[in-house]
Amino acid sequence: MAAPPNVPAMAAMEAGEKVSVWNYDLKPEGENDVTIKITKCGICATDIHMINNAWGFSVYPLIPGHEIVGEVVSYGSKVSGFQKGDLVGLGCLAQSCEKCPKCTTQQRDNLCPELKFTYFHTVVDETGEFQHRGGFASYIRTPASKVLKIPEGLDPAEAAPLLCAGVTTFTPLNEFSGNTGSLKGKKVGVIGPGGLGHLAVQFAAKMGAETVVIARNEAKKDFAFQLGATGFLVSESKDDMEAAARSFDFLISCISGGELDVHPYINLLAPYGTLHFVGIPDKPLTLDLMTMMFTRRSISCSPVGSTQQCRDMLEFAAKHGVKPIIERFPHSKAEEALEKVRSGKIRFRAVLENDLLSDAHAEKSGYGQ
Amino acid sequence: MAAPPNVPAMAAMEAGEKVSVWNYDLKPEGENDVTIKITKCGICATDIHMINNAWGFSVYPLIPGHEIVGEVVSYGSKVSGFQKGDLVGLGCLAQSCEKCPKCTTQQRDNLCPELKFTYFHTVVDETGEFQHRGGFASYIRTPASKVLKIPEGLDPAEAAPLLCAGVTTFTPLNEFSGNTGSLKGKKVGVIGPGGLGHLAVQFAAKMGAETVVIARNEAKKDFAFQLGATGFLVSESKDDMEAAARSFDFLISCISGGELDVHPYINLLAPYGTLHFVGIPDKPLTLDLMTMMFTRRSISCSPVGSTQQCRDMLEFAAKHGVKPIIERFPHSKAEEALEKVRSGKIRFRAVLENDLLSDAHAEKSGYGQ
Repeated sequence: MAAPPNVPAMAAMEAGEKVSVWNYDLKPEGENDVTIKITKCGICATDIHMINNAWGFSVYPLIPGHEIVGEVVSYGSKVSGFQKGDLVGLGCLAQSCEKCPKCTTQQRDNLCPELKFTYFHTVVDETGEFQHRGGFASYIRTPASKVLKIPEGLDPAEAAPLLCAGVTTFTPLNEFSGNTGSLKGKKVGVIGPGGLGHLAVQFAAKMGAETVVIARNEAKKDFAFQLGATGFLVSESKDDMEAAARSFDFLISCISGGELDVHPYINLLAPYGTLHFVGIPDKPLTLDLMTMMFTRRSISCSPVGSTQQCRDMLEFAAKHGVKPIIERFPHSKAEEALEKVRSGKIRFRAVLENDLLSDAHAEKSGYGQ
Repeated sequence: MAAPPNVPAMAAMEAGEKVSVWNYDLKPEGENDVTIKITKCGICATDIHMINNAWGFSVYPLIPGHEIVGEVVSYGSKVSGFQKGDLVGLGCLAQSCEKCPKCTTQQRDNLCPELKFTYFHTVVDETGEFQHRGGFASYIRTPASKVLKIPEGLDPAEAAPLLCAGVTTFTPLNEFSGNTGSLKGKKVGVIGPGGLGHLAVQFAAKMGAETVVIARNEAKKDFAFQLGATGFLVSESKDDMEAAARSFDFLISCISGGELDVHPYINLLAPYGTLHFVGIPDKPLTLDLMTMMFTRRSISCSPVGSTQQCRDMLEFAAKHGVKPIIERFPHSKAEEALEKVRSGKIRFRAVLENDLLSDAHAEKSGYGQ
């Protein structure tokens, strides 16, 4: 069944407001669009920042959500490779130029200068320019080039967080492996075993790395080993940190927010080692380059991966059984899910399941009238 | 003629003092030692820091100098590959363990955990443990493993600064080339066309990179093009810096001391670009990771290269005619040279030429009595 022109969603009507049911008009289906009936949507910290207009460019009503899974219900005349009923996903990337080297030969559309993000940009096609909406909705219409097929073997709800948190952690690890997917003989540290980190641990371990979880205390020690970690390091223990000095080839920092003294982590790096950030502290780092010079160390930082890297990640996750630990909430209780994410009590990713098309919600929202 | 047991040198007798003639006893010649009659010695900013005990570990009397060129006068029973009269060099590295992977398979003895530097460590062999001395002397006795043959075609005085400044700038550029020596198709920026930078420009240009010199003003513009630069960028010009945003694959920062706002330079980097430091500012950097994340940028930092990298650099320099611009001073006027380096008026490296063995200085110093 094709999508109706006007569909229910959970939206923040103003900055910082709770999300509530709001109907929006789908853009006209362009020749390159896919229309997806959303079944699942993961929640990411970015959604909360966007609801709060933390970066100043949120547009309201705002429909968050960029870890979107659903079924193809229709597609434009120039779309190939999709069938109605296909299980598909949409992550952070909504549209790019498809012409520059980043989009074409390099397959790094996440670095296209014209990149539009799912959750805060407008997209343009022959039908006009439209605010792109997120996955807290019941349907989405979006350029086919960024839509991903979900491989068999992945649970749809578990696949959702892979589309942002998964590809964000997989990609720098895979790049460090020279895009071979093998980190045998390498020692990798995962700083912060949370929403991002618990996926990074699994990816690193499945790539064959000696994988050490680094956390403030021992609370998640057993959990870390269950995820596949081969070691655990308490960052508050100066003795343990000193004993591990100069031993790590790669550290991936998965902590977002707060303040961070990077020097104890830099001290863990072997010569030519890299401290890589996928989470960003609230305050700029203070960085003494002398701690990097005599051991030829690096610091790097990456955003979400490209569409191709997301395909590679999904394939790797399906093959190796990498999956997030999730808590499920109906779309209609998105606010409850957001609150649990805000409080840091979520273990480890929240996933919404679409109940907005049920009769009860359809009536409340005016949908179908 | 073999070296005498007691030899004249220019030494700082106390922290911050002017260097003056002082005789020192050469260590006994070990079975792995080479004894070198010094003919040239470059001056590096590190020498001035060491004279001033800026890092707290200087030992006095202190004989600076780690860009040493001279002739082999004798060698120990286990030394092979050197003949008396060979023109040789000694850079920053005095001794390493020769057993760890860094020293052996990886050929990165500059990163050996047991590394001893020419200008501030002691070395140990079967004859005992001795303070290693620098090249402001007339002779030096040192482990053969770090002694380098100077290739034909290099002027001995011009070769001296290559042994520290040369290998320090060559190595990260060559590593960025994947150790191919070719940077064709890459855009490289050299920040600070001074003692280190004027060599970096030549190396990058000879490797085939589009090579842009970045300086505070236009004073060295003509000079930069003479060195082989293909472009010039004034860092104080916000418009020019903005126009060059996202275009550089690699930036090598050759400025030592002072304060540095890195963000205008980070903004110059293309996706996956690296800002690499071979010079270190006096104060820790303030680093906003957000400026790195969405373009997948890196920051790295390197010390002097390894013995093998120094050999590679000397070969590259001889083949491509890379050479420092130097001012020559006799060893006996080392203080005059140091003063010119301190004042920043040197263009671009000072090189001492050994006159300490002449009769006049031998008498003054008591040498030969």
